[in-house]
Amino acid sequence: MARYVPSTELVERVISGETAAIARLISRAESGIPEAREGLAQIYNRSGKAHVIGITGVPGSGKSTLVAHLAHLLRARGKKVGIVAVDPSSPYSGGAILGDRIRMTELAMDPGIFIRSMATRGAMGGMARAALDAVDVLDVGGFETIIIETVGVGQDEVEIARASHTTVVVSAPGLGDEIQAIKAGILEIADIHVVSKCDRSDANRTLTDLKAMLTLGLSGATQPAWRPLIVGVSSVNGQGFDDLMSALDKHREVTFGTELGRDRQLKIADFRLKKTAENLLLERFNNASNGLSRPLAERLRSREADPYSLANDLVAAVMKEEHAHEPF
Amino acid sequence: MARYVPSTELVERVISGETAAIARLISRAESGIPEAREGLAQIYNRSGKAHVIGITGVPGSGKSTLVAHLAHLLRARGKKVGIVAVDPSSPYSGGAILGDRIRMTELAMDPGIFIRSMATRGAMGGMARAALDAVDVLDVGGFETIIIETVGVGQDEVEIARASHTTVVVSAPGLGDEIQAIKAGILEIADIHVVSKCDRSDANRTLTDLKAMLTLGLSGATQPAWRPLIVGVSSVNGQGFDDLMSALDKHREVTFGTELGRDRQLKIADFRLKKTAENLLLERFNNASNGLSRPLAERLRSREADPYSLANDLVAAVMKEEHAHEPF
Repeated sequence: MARYVPSTELVERVISGETAAIARLISRAESGIPEAREGLAQIYNRSGKAHVIGITGVPGSGKSTLVAHLAHLLRARGKKVGIVAVDPSSPYSGGAILGDRIRMTELAMDPGIFIRSMATRGAMGGMARAALDAVDVLDVGGFETIIIETVGVGQDEVEIARASHTTVVVSAPGLGDEIQAIKAGILEIADIHVVSKCDRSDANRTLTDLKAMLTLGLSGATQPAWRPLIVGVSSVNGQGFDDLMSALDKHREVTFGTELGRDRQLKIADFRLKKTAENLLLERFNNASNGLSRPLAERLRSREADPYSLANDLVAAVMKEEHAHEPF
Repeated sequence: MARYVPSTELVERVISGETAAIARLISRAESGIPEAREGLAQIYNRSGKAHVIGITGVPGSGKSTLVAHLAHLLRARGKKVGIVAVDPSSPYSGGAILGDRIRMTELAMDPGIFIRSMATRGAMGGMARAALDAVDVLDVGGFETIIIETVGVGQDEVEIARASHTTVVVSAPGLGDEIQAIKAGILEIADIHVVSKCDRSDANRTLTDLKAMLTLGLSGATQPAWRPLIVGVSSVNGQGFDDLMSALDKHREVTFGTELGRDRQLKIADFRLKKTAENLLLERFNNASNGLSRPLAERLRSREADPYSLANDLVAAVMKEEHAHEPF
């Protein structure tokens, strides 16, 4: 059996770009074991070089196909590409989409591409924290463009897509009304809008609607520093991908070369700091509350007391317990 | 302008079933203002009579149509029905589905039905807490069956669907592979499986697949106390709704009359206690960290220090600050 490699030892191998070490450190980040943190802390000051692109869209918007196409084009430019898919519907996670799976398999064979699918449930200590740790590992491992793909439904999923340098929201023509209504909630976070499936005749309508919406949103407002771009693409005939690559390049320059990009990076850092601190706090709280919560839950069930006062009691009890040992 | 009514004053009017008071107390629960808690705490010991049904399913599964149909049938039995929709794609929230909207409007005109759509983002202090508070308000306001509808994507959304007496997972034939893959993740939480759109010829396949899956899941295991039921329905021709009503009645009896139901209610109480305590903790933490996080975020951005040590610093700083004032 392979010996257990301490996370701090993995770090050297991650820095030299060793795929197995990268995969292993990401797994540990995802599992949230405290031992992994030391290794992750060690690599952090070497990260920050990669362009991190968040790609999100409702189920059926074709974002996985878009990601695959984009990865091919970035490879053709000689870039190493990391993909972190926080998406239960992603073809990387096993189940789905036959046509895509073939393309994905090609991708998976290329050592210049690293694909990692993350569970959307049960990531200990939070999906956002785990995904951003994975981005660092890939960054330090030499991947120059890192794509975070998330499904555009769910609070955490959307937050993760925002916590990237460049947020791409994918829309598609011909989705049901129910899906369209969900979509409306994520349009506002886009730096770049992509309308996929532009080989279809009803795609023009989607493009026109998006343009109208953006024009409305901007009327009367002061000129924003970055005006969201709209790009139509087709993964069938390749149309529009040059424009998408240009749009990404343009936003990459903003990210690394302007005050606006610096502000964005500060916002991402603030989000990440708070998420990590919150997770730390909740982890300690949950460890400490394990033995204490059951009798309080029984009182809640029998309605002897209300949720707010019992929650107060639980927090107070945990704090007291913790103070006996170490500063909480 | 109407005077501001304190939440504690609203309570009496909620108990007497006044719709406007119910709506107002739910709004305050959703906004998470501390002042609302007193009112919510006051009603809690009167709650616990209603049957709470969580209905979830992927976008396009037809769960909103199912909810509307079910509400009609419950009304025909003389039950008052509360609906809490935690779903951006829900037709109640405004956008969607024309045919349904007409049916929804009918529902909305009926004083025996109360429909409330909750934002899935930005509910201060957590969606789960707000949704469960809303259930209490409706319960105390005299609603006998309360349906929580959530979209079956996203960690919080699925957790909310579980925190009900009876969890119904809606599947539909003919959805795309991408959607099917998402669906797989929520099947396990069902007490009752509903296959919608059973007027379609491909619905049999969906039913057969579900049955096969459940049989596989059970083989070799000890007989579970509740074996998930599978019901096929069609909102077009009304087929299967009698079976669904029977299944709900059956599970309602388990909820209120058996040890198993008692366990389930204890689990819900435990979940709710922990969520409320976590939200309380995070609220205090976020209030206290507001002034402290910015310089740490700047150090994170510039990579002077790593997320874990800075998060530790932030938690420690908040605790120190808080101890100066009151026990945190």
